Amino acid sequence: MKSTILTGIKPTGQVHLGNYIGAIKPALELAKMQTHQHAYFVADYHSLTKIHHAEELRHLSYGIAATWLALGLDPEKVIFYRQSDVPEVFELNWILACFASKGLMNRAHAYKAIVDQNRQLDKDIDSGVNMGIFTYPILMAADILMFQTDIVPVGKDQVQHVEIARDIADSFNRTYGDTFKLPEYKIQEETAVLPGLDGRKMSKSYNNTIPLFVEPKKLQKLINKIKTDSTPPEEPKDPNQSVLFSIYKEFATPLEIEKMREQYVSGISWGEAKKQLFQVMNRFLEEPREKYNELMASPEKLDEILKRGVEKARAVSKPFLKEIKCKLGMNV
Amino acid sequence: MKSTILTGIKPTGQVHLGNYIGAIKPALELAKMQTHQHAYFVADYHSLTKIHHAEELRHLSYGIAATWLALGLDPEKVIFYRQSDVPEVFELNWILACFASKGLMNRAHAYKAIVDQNRQLDKDIDSGVNMGIFTYPILMAADILMFQTDIVPVGKDQVQHVEIARDIADSFNRTYGDTFKLPEYKIQEETAVLPGLDGRKMSKSYNNTIPLFVEPKKLQKLINKIKTDSTPPEEPKDPNQSVLFSIYKEFATPLEIEKMREQYVSGISWGEAKKQLFQVMNRFLEEPREKYNELMASPEKLDEILKRGVEKARAVSKPFLKEIKCKLGMNV
Repeated sequence: MKSTILTGIKPTGQVHLGNYIGAIKPALELAKMQTHQHAYFVADYHSLTKIHHAEELRHLSYGIAATWLALGLDPEKVIFYRQSDVPEVFELNWILACFASKGLMNRAHAYKAIVDQNRQLDKDIDSGVNMGIFTYPILMAADILMFQTDIVPVGKDQVQHVEIARDIADSFNRTYGDTFKLPEYKIQEETAVLPGLDGRKMSKSYNNTIPLFVEPKKLQKLINKIKTDSTPPEEPKDPNQSVLFSIYKEFATPLEIEKMREQYVSGISWGEAKKQLFQVMNRFLEEPREKYNELMASPEKLDEILKRGVEKARAVSKPFLKEIKCKLGMNV
Repeated sequence: MKSTILTGIKPTGQVHLGNYIGAIKPALELAKMQTHQHAYFVADYHSLTKIHHAEELRHLSYGIAATWLALGLDPEKVIFYRQSDVPEVFELNWILACFASKGLMNRAHAYKAIVDQNRQLDKDIDSGVNMGIFTYPILMAADILMFQTDIVPVGKDQVQHVEIARDIADSFNRTYGDTFKLPEYKIQEETAVLPGLDGRKMSKSYNNTIPLFVEPKKLQKLINKIKTDSTPPEEPKDPNQSVLFSIYKEFATPLEIEKMREQYVSGISWGEAKKQLFQVMNRFLEEPREKYNELMASPEKLDEILKRGVEKARAVSKPFLKEIKCKLGMNV
């Protein structure tokens, strides 16, 4: 049996260029590995720890699903589903809670960061913490263990989540015998942090992003806003120090990249560099943008795709939960 | 529409006389109130916070279901189901977690008692606490709110659970508009604590109980073990100070109780009092005991009854969860 790679996608904001280069592009590369089975899920219930607004959650969930499909995720070749369509995950969430020590949660990075911040502000350490925020590593463990996941691709800051899942799985297995596969993490190669329009890291919270699917005119405007230095047009420039070049590399062909490198060395105006960046970006984004807009205009299509996906997911989760409940001593 | 009274029954040990007099009997009395709709559920997933042994959990769950049915709970007149058969409750459990502040859990009595104990023993405050133990008040809130419960009959020590459910419901309602009924608690009348064989409170942990459905010979033996003082047979005795009399009252007719009171005052030997106690107890228990043994011998009958019960329960929980998810912004 092929081993399984699972990727969760949490809808938290409009997808921007930083998300694409840092997370989506490498994950889509991964999906091409035919040696593995791939599962991708829209982690909508994870967003509920923070988003308490129906229209926002709905729009973001559809948006993230449409983005991945528009960029080439093939729902026929992978298992692509919505977390909230798999009730088994939530029953498993409770089961795993009974095998997760509270100390494990106390030490979770995200929670500890909030506690530290509250301390600095002289607030109660748990101020603003709801139980979703405190317990989400258990739900993540359920997401992972439900599908006998072998590998979870993660950023460095998420390694702990996979370790927690292993910990809980191990604790369960020691009690009831081998049941859950212990998942491994695979740290995604460090992509250089993409700077935003103002030179800081591109992030929704800095309001300095380039949304992936903006219309061409708006895209051009945003590219024109990218900060450059005051080197005169004709002077040589170091491509490795240029944000424009680092984005260019993500969308251009090897030959184009080589040529652009030469132009930098021999002197290119920032205006011209921006123009050419827009051209390669827009060339790449044109089709996905159209597909994205199409999907967003007919969410029933998205629903249908996700519905077909969840059938595949529940073909795994239903019998497995049954097996787990039998081991617990529950009649099913 | 009739308002709903919900009673959860947690399988944690063999049912004994103390459980019957203190909890089961008043709950069965309540079930006769035809002005209300009654739901009773076997809270098997709550036991998972502590019981990690399949055969034990299975036996206890069947045992508690058989006990209530044997004692007269009519599954046609009430909604009688097993918690683990209602997946909607576990999805709601996660939803409610996102509306429960962590401070609320920090202040839960049961958790605080463990923390105090750990402190006294100089242990880490969370030593031995799994996340099931820490978060079960949220699952109880889900149990209660899922069925738009109006009234939860509780012992004094459980009032806080209903308050927590109200708190979470209120927090949700303030965000998404009126959705959950705010449940009320009804403190069950203080029944005198039933002393066990050794005079201390009857409790599994003291190993001083009279299991409800032991065979007659064993029942007689256990009754004979009940501690009495050394008042000589012919001397007058105070019925109000006698454990034998207080148990007798629970099973005898008013006339019998009157007569027994007279016998105490005019002098009755402890041996005779025990004999008569056995007679009324056994008279009452004979039929339920037989029914209990019958049900325990054919668990498939229990499964069938619980299955019919859960159909009634899910006729409520399924559409209601759908409604809730719509409010959250999830497509269903």
